[in-house]
Amino acid sequence: MRISELAAASGISVATLKFYLRERLLAPGTPRAVNQADYDSSHLQRVRLIRALTEIGELRLRQVRAIVAAIDDTHVPLHDLLGIAQYALEGEDEAPGPPSEAVDAVDAALVDDVLAELGWNVNRDAPARRSLARTLGSLRRLGWNVTAADVARYGRAIDGLAADEVETLRTDGSRADAVERLVTGTILFEAVLIALRRLAQERHAAARFAASASAGSIPRP
Amino acid sequence: MRISELAAASGISVATLKFYLRERLLAPGTPRAVNQADYDSSHLQRVRLIRALTEIGELRLRQVRAIVAAIDDTHVPLHDLLGIAQYALEGEDEAPGPPSEAVDAVDAALVDDVLAELGWNVNRDAPARRSLARTLGSLRRLGWNVTAADVARYGRAIDGLAADEVETLRTDGSRADAVERLVTGTILFEAVLIALRRLAQERHAAARFAASASAGSIPRP
Repeated sequence: MRISELAAASGISVATLKFYLRERLLAPGTPRAVNQADYDSSHLQRVRLIRALTEIGELRLRQVRAIVAAIDDTHVPLHDLLGIAQYALEGEDEAPGPPSEAVDAVDAALVDDVLAELGWNVNRDAPARRSLARTLGSLRRLGWNVTAADVARYGRAIDGLAADEVETLRTDGSRADAVERLVTGTILFEAVLIALRRLAQERHAAARFAASASAGSIPRP
Repeated sequence: MRISELAAASGISVATLKFYLRERLLAPGTPRAVNQADYDSSHLQRVRLIRALTEIGELRLRQVRAIVAAIDDTHVPLHDLLGIAQYALEGEDEAPGPPSEAVDAVDAALVDDVLAELGWNVNRDAPARRSLARTLGSLRRLGWNVTAADVARYGRAIDGLAADEVETLRTDGSRADAVERLVTGTILFEAVLIALRRLAQERHAAARFAASASAGSIPRP
């Protein structure tokens, strides 16, 4: 297909596709005529992956380039490749609170206690440890008295889901496929979980406040 | 205390405090001398609330103003007040994917199926319904075949937590306190949940891939 057809099929503008080609995120098409090249389904798949990484994963170009390079380098084992993608998703600035804030030793110790309480064996360098510690620090500074047992309850609630998510991670398709599924699954099921938590809160709040109000649910402002 | 002391106590600059005063988000202090006013703990509490709304809840000034007005208007019942704050947190642009995207009927129907499967009674206007529908639409367009039963599992996993969260929502303090707790609790425990999901995924991935690799955990890139 021509570049205009690739644009139509992927929902990415021709200008952006040309940018991907210049940046070597996308392999050149097969030359057809002067200023014309042919693209195939491998190009479409790559564009879809880049879009998932940038739009859903909100990764920077530098991170996208590292992941694409790891996909193309078949010497990188699949589990390393998935690790690279997973760690790239965990930017330092994703936790609420001032992004530059260092992790307080008190909060890092609380994370250790939480993991001990859960009996989870997690890499010391896992960025999610720092995210969790920083969030617990924000709660602490706001006057919340959160214990390891409180936090562990959240871990227990989602542990079974996480096990299934890892179990069903498809590794039978291409390497690009596996990365795309990992990234979209991580980010989008996060959004699923958050939306359902809010829906659950809403229904429980409606039940709790039903006694004290005429309306049976939280009203729209 | 003077405005400079209020700034030191709240961690908000004098310039920003003056902006809050001009915008009437913060009540004027008691006049002391020319160009000098006295602020007390009620001012400090209000500044902390505004900070929680803007920095943690990432609300816009317009939304902060509406919430502050509802707190000060004692004719607004507490459960309406909490509803206003909760709905303000659910902006239209929080779901992944193009923000302007309308909810597809297919996805809205899937959300109905999920709620039916869970047996949850949730307000038709709840913004989290739209967030969930848009996220399911993104998954669908990316080729994921997600069923109502798949999604309902996420709902079941966090329902008990949500019930406890609503149950322990403190309504014994001031109205401002209750709103601050609701906002910080909603946002920060979301971050706790997400960090723990990633830690759980990491430990399960380490276990799954341990057989095929020498390292026992996902390596740092």
